[in-house]
Amino acid sequence: MSGNNSQPGRTVASRMLAILDAFDFEHPRLSLSELARRADLSLPTTHRLVGELTSWRGLEREDDGKYRVGLHLLELGLLSGVHTRLRDVAMPFMQELYEATRENVHLAVRDGDKALYVEKLTGHRSVPIISRTGGRLPLHTTGVGKALLAWASPAVIDSHLGRQLSRPTRYSIREPGRLRRDLRRTRRRGFATTREEMTLGSCSVASPVLVDDEPVAAVGVVVRSSSLELDRLAPPVLAAARGIGARLAEAGDDPYPGYVRDHTPRPNR
Amino acid sequence: MSGNNSQPGRTVASRMLAILDAFDFEHPRLSLSELARRADLSLPTTHRLVGELTSWRGLEREDDGKYRVGLHLLELGLLSGVHTRLRDVAMPFMQELYEATRENVHLAVRDGDKALYVEKLTGHRSVPIISRTGGRLPLHTTGVGKALLAWASPAVIDSHLGRQLSRPTRYSIREPGRLRRDLRRTRRRGFATTREEMTLGSCSVASPVLVDDEPVAAVGVVVRSSSLELDRLAPPVLAAARGIGARLAEAGDDPYPGYVRDHTPRPNR
Repeated sequence: MSGNNSQPGRTVASRMLAILDAFDFEHPRLSLSELARRADLSLPTTHRLVGELTSWRGLEREDDGKYRVGLHLLELGLLSGVHTRLRDVAMPFMQELYEATRENVHLAVRDGDKALYVEKLTGHRSVPIISRTGGRLPLHTTGVGKALLAWASPAVIDSHLGRQLSRPTRYSIREPGRLRRDLRRTRRRGFATTREEMTLGSCSVASPVLVDDEPVAAVGVVVRSSSLELDRLAPPVLAAARGIGARLAEAGDDPYPGYVRDHTPRPNR
Repeated sequence: MSGNNSQPGRTVASRMLAILDAFDFEHPRLSLSELARRADLSLPTTHRLVGELTSWRGLEREDDGKYRVGLHLLELGLLSGVHTRLRDVAMPFMQELYEATRENVHLAVRDGDKALYVEKLTGHRSVPIISRTGGRLPLHTTGVGKALLAWASPAVIDSHLGRQLSRPTRYSIREPGRLRRDLRRTRRRGFATTREEMTLGSCSVASPVLVDDEPVAAVGVVVRSSSLELDRLAPPVLAAARGIGARLAEAGDDPYPGYVRDHTPRPNR
């Protein structure tokens, strides 16, 4: 094993994963020395592992010598179940929701205490917002997050409400009692709303995608706060969430339920 | 190093990458022994590395004991430049193209001798097709592929035409002379077309996204072959390709040109 390292107990595998984990939203491009520092590895070890990752095309070296995540990691990631099973099934329903609203349409899953945005449809006329595919936002300040939390198990809700909750705007709800009432109302109505709780100027409506009563994802729409008729948006959001849930339940174990496999043209409509 | 392996010269890092490479479109879910066989590793080595990858959440173990690519690899992949720089910029233009056509809209990049599909928008009324995000199809039988090839360097074109070209349908063009004429016509018109060359029943129109005259991507639409007015589809496809190219040229080195960073609401339109 490469001995000139500060933590000789680390495995080579974990060193390689530490290099990949050096990249995040705030650090999408890193030099070799930045990589070594962020992964806590010696420069020679970093150099060798980055070389292997680059020839594998998991990393790409740009013209200025900085590295970023490469095409092969994107390709691998797109094989994940969240993409092939959930996102591909959800896409036509999200597209209908976009057509009905012309606003940002989100698909998110719960990843620990955050909502991870798996897909986002957006048009030139949609309100500019900070979500991005692959990004995470808090559960208690986003529509999709509240929808995921409201249908989570009591243990998950309790553990979430027990934390110190962030407050991105003055409208964010972080008092456990108020949040609990909001989640109860969300379950009763079948959809969550936020009013400038994540971003000033933006409101949202979201509903969970339920499979066997489990919230496997949430779908939502973000609009500018001047369009205050959030209740009007609920029916198409609910229809999309239910459509995705029904299709997923139907798909069972199929790894690619959203994908057409044979080359035979289907009869025209 | 773990000695009980058939190829003791392989590095631990390359063994880990071999495990990831065992997954592909045809093999999205693999048992431990299938992983060992496909990665050409001993079962103990596979077990140990899969354990590290699973606790890192790059792999997920499903209820039946099979493994598949996990959420963390999707999250990492979405940090790639192709996603954050290209796909996020392209999305609103693709959305407009979808609204104008209601058909499958593709964004692809050239990866060696294949078109890699980076994004696909599809509705319930779109013709069912075999493309999928993260998938690859041949350059010479797809609209986006021909658009990428037509604007490639003469060396790339020559090397491509020198290969044995596949023929997924009886309409696929694989004679070098005919293909060369098709590519010349594509460059002259500014867009590529295919007529049942990849899939019987489907036709396509695509145009390259040019930045400094380089075809960095291609955008295209796939329709059923009963809608034969491909030329009618060319103007919105060209507009989308040009719009994306102009936005990319403008964005320069910004790693997230499609993303809104601050929380300040923009004034209403």
